[in-house]
Amino acid sequence: MNMNDQIGAAQLMVELGERSYPIWIGSGLISRIGRAFQLQHIPTGSPILVITDDKVGPKYLHQVAEALEYVGYSVSTHQVPSGEKSKSLRVFEDCISAALEAGCDRKSTVVALGGGVVGDLAGFVAATYMRGVRFVQVPTTILAHDSSVGGKVAVNHPLAKNIIGAFHQPDMVLYDTSTLQSLPDRDVRSGLAEMIKHGLIWDQSFAAWCEEHAEQLLAKDEEALTYGLLQGCAIKAAVVSQDERENDLRAILNLGHTIGHALEAVAGYGELLHGEAIAIGMIGSARLAEQMGMAAGVAEYTERLMKSFGLPTAIPAHYDTEQIIAAMMHDKKFNEGRTMFVLPTAIGRVEIRRDVPVEQVRDIIEELKGAGTWQ
Amino acid sequence: MNMNDQIGAAQLMVELGERSYPIWIGSGLISRIGRAFQLQHIPTGSPILVITDDKVGPKYLHQVAEALEYVGYSVSTHQVPSGEKSKSLRVFEDCISAALEAGCDRKSTVVALGGGVVGDLAGFVAATYMRGVRFVQVPTTILAHDSSVGGKVAVNHPLAKNIIGAFHQPDMVLYDTSTLQSLPDRDVRSGLAEMIKHGLIWDQSFAAWCEEHAEQLLAKDEEALTYGLLQGCAIKAAVVSQDERENDLRAILNLGHTIGHALEAVAGYGELLHGEAIAIGMIGSARLAEQMGMAAGVAEYTERLMKSFGLPTAIPAHYDTEQIIAAMMHDKKFNEGRTMFVLPTAIGRVEIRRDVPVEQVRDIIEELKGAGTWQ
Repeated sequence: MNMNDQIGAAQLMVELGERSYPIWIGSGLISRIGRAFQLQHIPTGSPILVITDDKVGPKYLHQVAEALEYVGYSVSTHQVPSGEKSKSLRVFEDCISAALEAGCDRKSTVVALGGGVVGDLAGFVAATYMRGVRFVQVPTTILAHDSSVGGKVAVNHPLAKNIIGAFHQPDMVLYDTSTLQSLPDRDVRSGLAEMIKHGLIWDQSFAAWCEEHAEQLLAKDEEALTYGLLQGCAIKAAVVSQDERENDLRAILNLGHTIGHALEAVAGYGELLHGEAIAIGMIGSARLAEQMGMAAGVAEYTERLMKSFGLPTAIPAHYDTEQIIAAMMHDKKFNEGRTMFVLPTAIGRVEIRRDVPVEQVRDIIEELKGAGTWQ
Repeated sequence: MNMNDQIGAAQLMVELGERSYPIWIGSGLISRIGRAFQLQHIPTGSPILVITDDKVGPKYLHQVAEALEYVGYSVSTHQVPSGEKSKSLRVFEDCISAALEAGCDRKSTVVALGGGVVGDLAGFVAATYMRGVRFVQVPTTILAHDSSVGGKVAVNHPLAKNIIGAFHQPDMVLYDTSTLQSLPDRDVRSGLAEMIKHGLIWDQSFAAWCEEHAEQLLAKDEEALTYGLLQGCAIKAAVVSQDERENDLRAILNLGHTIGHALEAVAGYGELLHGEAIAIGMIGSARLAEQMGMAAGVAEYTERLMKSFGLPTAIPAHYDTEQIIAAMMHDKKFNEGRTMFVLPTAIGRVEIRRDVPVEQVRDIIEELKGAGTWQ
């Protein structure tokens, strides 16, 4: 971990050649966003468009705009309804209209102020407006530590999540941990699921650290959060640096997502939080791995970990198994007639497999509907 | 010019490192598209989606699908209404639905069968579906020789043309000159305007060749067309290879487009053909350059060239000058408070200028409304 003394924040660099960028994490960073823009040489001559939602906007939009205007930026803002439903082409078009009305040009910057939904949506706006403009992420949820690293941006289609998107790296990520203090507990738990995932795919000792610090993390202790977010981002950055466009390695970040995305699609976007869905998915993957003789004991460990964070460990019994299977077939991870699973081989190690028989997936889904807790 | 004997076509390589791709030009190529796919190692395991419009589809869709199926590809098709209005987010969403329904996955290929509208639309589908899949262009107009090289893809917003888009290089371009034979004369002229533009920005001798062969080109002589298209594509490829993402040099391809795009926006997309609009724009640029003392005689030469191809040389008198100026301000070429002009310094040489006073632009527009021919 490095410190950037110029803005007083922990700094992590995501190494992507000429597209490398810094992630800054610290308390009260939003008030120093103007200085951060200057450090990244973002030009003042073109309008900045801040996209946020109607939950985050009222809390922080004024502060962000003021801090940018103070150092000479011209700022326009656009607020969308909160929730996954805003990741639609309709809302995307509204954002493009807002960019045009603000007079945004090729040297403009789009700022995402909010959680993963706002980040994905605003990121897709930045990726496509005039074929791509600068992009800055200001995440205000724990979950967004995952989505704000790596440049994947997208909106949903009624039939499939994240199906319309791009790879578009931000110019910087500015993580103000004080914005996390007002997060509802359910969102905290959901966000921590992605943090734990980073331990499970890459670093056994970080997984153990998560388990040991569950209490502090759930209580939003700023020191624990800063360390956990930095580690989570660092693991994701290490993976993405090696495989920006997901040709192979990057796919390991999808642990729990094959089942998880299908559950989200069946539930209707928004009913099940993303972290909740992948918590169940990670348990499913571990069980599949055990049945295939790949990883003894990992399923039990994974389930214990999820329980210690108050995350669900079972599929709600009323979800239709065949609908879940069908949703998997519409996912980006399905191709050439097979779906992809990320399966653990040990704690902190995973393998990408395309040979999981659909019958076995069906059995695991049935099993997950029978047992465990679902709040 | 090289020949590729395996499919019997003239071949030009667009050099873009690992994104390099071939352009094949020849008569009857559509019937050999299956072989071309094999040569480019396009996998047979994932569905192919051919996007076309309701004018081109009835003529060639069956032939394309059959040729691909013959060598083992699974093919789905999607037909959109012909015309610029199909470059909308609504029609784009329909295409994404079609891709999902066809079961397209990450290894699928989107084929654009048609003119520039279909190429831009299908290209944006390929750029964003699952964050990017393979893309093949099968242009059926002369105008598309320009848009099919260089990877610029986009749809329109009601307020601005091509404002939502991406850079997404095709895997190959397959140009069947026999499909050009059924083009209406007005489309032939419009397409040739872009061909002439390539001479005017880069190669005086090619501009002269165009003038000498105006008659053959207008009569759709296949030999003249093949040579002209290859030269036009080669010039564009040379420019794009040096500056894929339009940081500087690539902007020279916009000769005539600052005024041209504004005219198209004011006319309502579709009323004025693209080549017609840029023909007027190229004359405007040459006059601006003359007034600024940059290029004596180029305006007269440009006007004569446009006339020899039956292209318009005046702005329709009922267009509102202030509306034209306002449309320029919404264009991607406008940033940091100034609009960009590509101005000739000689025949075959241009310069990018951002210092043209708006008053002078206004004068030129008024002048162009007063004189010349408009059919």
